[in-house]
Amino acid sequence: MRVEQLRGGAVEAWHDVHVAVVDAAGKLVAQVGDPDLVTYWRSAAKPFQALPLAADGVLERFAITTEQLALCCASHSSEPQHLAIVRDLLAKIGCSERDLLCGPHPPLSESVARDYASRGVRLTAVYSNCSGKHAGMLALARHHGWPTEFYTRVEHPVQQRCLEEVSRWTDLPKHEIGTAVDGCGVVCYGLRLRNMALAYARLASDPPRQFRVPPSAFRVVEAMVRHPELIAGEGRPCTDLMRAHPGRVLAKVGAEGVYCALLVRDGLGVALKVADGHGLAAALALAAVLEELGVRPRPASLGPRPNVNTRGETVGELRVNGGLGE
Amino acid sequence: MRVEQLRGGAVEAWHDVHVAVVDAAGKLVAQVGDPDLVTYWRSAAKPFQALPLAADGVLERFAITTEQLALCCASHSSEPQHLAIVRDLLAKIGCSERDLLCGPHPPLSESVARDYASRGVRLTAVYSNCSGKHAGMLALARHHGWPTEFYTRVEHPVQQRCLEEVSRWTDLPKHEIGTAVDGCGVVCYGLRLRNMALAYARLASDPPRQFRVPPSAFRVVEAMVRHPELIAGEGRPCTDLMRAHPGRVLAKVGAEGVYCALLVRDGLGVALKVADGHGLAAALALAAVLEELGVRPRPASLGPRPNVNTRGETVGELRVNGGLGE
Repeated sequence: MRVEQLRGGAVEAWHDVHVAVVDAAGKLVAQVGDPDLVTYWRSAAKPFQALPLAADGVLERFAITTEQLALCCASHSSEPQHLAIVRDLLAKIGCSERDLLCGPHPPLSESVARDYASRGVRLTAVYSNCSGKHAGMLALARHHGWPTEFYTRVEHPVQQRCLEEVSRWTDLPKHEIGTAVDGCGVVCYGLRLRNMALAYARLASDPPRQFRVPPSAFRVVEAMVRHPELIAGEGRPCTDLMRAHPGRVLAKVGAEGVYCALLVRDGLGVALKVADGHGLAAALALAAVLEELGVRPRPASLGPRPNVNTRGETVGELRVNGGLGE
Repeated sequence: MRVEQLRGGAVEAWHDVHVAVVDAAGKLVAQVGDPDLVTYWRSAAKPFQALPLAADGVLERFAITTEQLALCCASHSSEPQHLAIVRDLLAKIGCSERDLLCGPHPPLSESVARDYASRGVRLTAVYSNCSGKHAGMLALARHHGWPTEFYTRVEHPVQQRCLEEVSRWTDLPKHEIGTAVDGCGVVCYGLRLRNMALAYARLASDPPRQFRVPPSAFRVVEAMVRHPELIAGEGRPCTDLMRAHPGRVLAKVGAEGVYCALLVRDGLGVALKVADGHGLAAALALAAVLEELGVRPRPASLGPRPNVNTRGETVGELRVNGGLGE
């Protein structure tokens, strides 16, 4: 399977895709390319970085809502509703925007970015697509009485707690998980696609005997599938996919061409990487994989995408070629 | 050879590179991947689209300067000096900006784009990086008495004349050259990297007997190597490469990961494609190939590029792995 950029009927550029589809017992159900490719999980690890909030009683302690939990799992578009929910969560735990250590960046939604740029909005840490995750990490620190300073560092108990959760769900000892610094400054995890897919599959499955799915997983899954508009934002692939199949699919993007999903009813996890890191190609590939797994139809926004030149002429398209097993 | 995006010491994404290095007799001197890969030449064809201006006497007819000819070969940054030269050329041939059929787009230079956005500059056709090429095509039409309307269409004599020139230099019959619509609306050419490299090699070489290099080629080469700042712009790879090795190298970028170069003294042509279309990877790869061919040192801007996250931390780098023949 590759995602091809066509111009006038000929392939001008292409994006190689690697996919692992795994069930909750760890069985590789389908694949493309190398399901054992090691890469960074990036933001597709967010549900697992939010799991300690449910597992450790942080949700109850601070009466964190499903909307706020959804934001902790999100790569949000910096829409006003996203910022408001993060700010409410920060206030609830006695923190402020000044405690957030994520760096600002233009909103991931082009239309939101254009709007803010045209109005001269000053982008601060809360505008980071990761600000919900960071607020969740601050809540975890508050709950356990850990310092809220330097919570992004790998040696901080917040990061160690998240790593422990990642280790548990991916079935990998901590020392087999590579670590590096993510785009927002926290720890990111290097592991095989197969293990990423396993973790997703386990979130909502009849568990194999040796792995008991804790109720905390259901809280995270519920928060995400109930609020597709909070996981990404208007017009973005995660939101479009989850809206198109309510309660049936949970999709989470990661930077540099990573995409993960859970087929809730089938108990299947999907992890996918576009080798060159192309984000739109990853979204189109995920939609194609989900369709092949029975999640039909693809949202219109994730079918072949016209390639429009500066004169407004359609000169080609971006489309998926091939399927699972290719 | 591939260009790797590292994070914390591990490869997170990579860009496959295909290269052909060819001499003026068509001998493949060095290669990476598939030198027979067929792709679109895009803006790296501009020197050959400008050649009819020299060959047909258009330069003399309108007293076109070397700066103006350089702009006809450029993918410029929309700097004020670039716009002024294109406007002067248009005036000289009795045309105006209204005759330009290229679509506008944000300047290819990030700093120029930021500057214009912050000042609310309205981007019109002359701001297109291709406006010099379009002005040259209008000059060609004026000279031959062809209509200036619809000059972008494949059936227009301007495009047929350019295709004839491309056919001549690439050693390919016209019917073996694929055509499609380019980003700016004119015809773009689909052909093998090997033939692109041959065309560049022929521009400034002791010609083999069967191909006489016309004086027109020297006019185009001279205009380009004398004015590196007009071929791209401040801080952009073509300009940096040509400035670092004055008179020794001619470099021309194309969209979607294409890069071509001429080693003027060695009479070698280089054509390169990053399969996924990554532009910065293509520039780093070209600098590495040129270095291996003896064009040393690489400009500092085209060595390994730090990957900086939203907090300003260096979290990895983009760098070339491997060399010619790999």
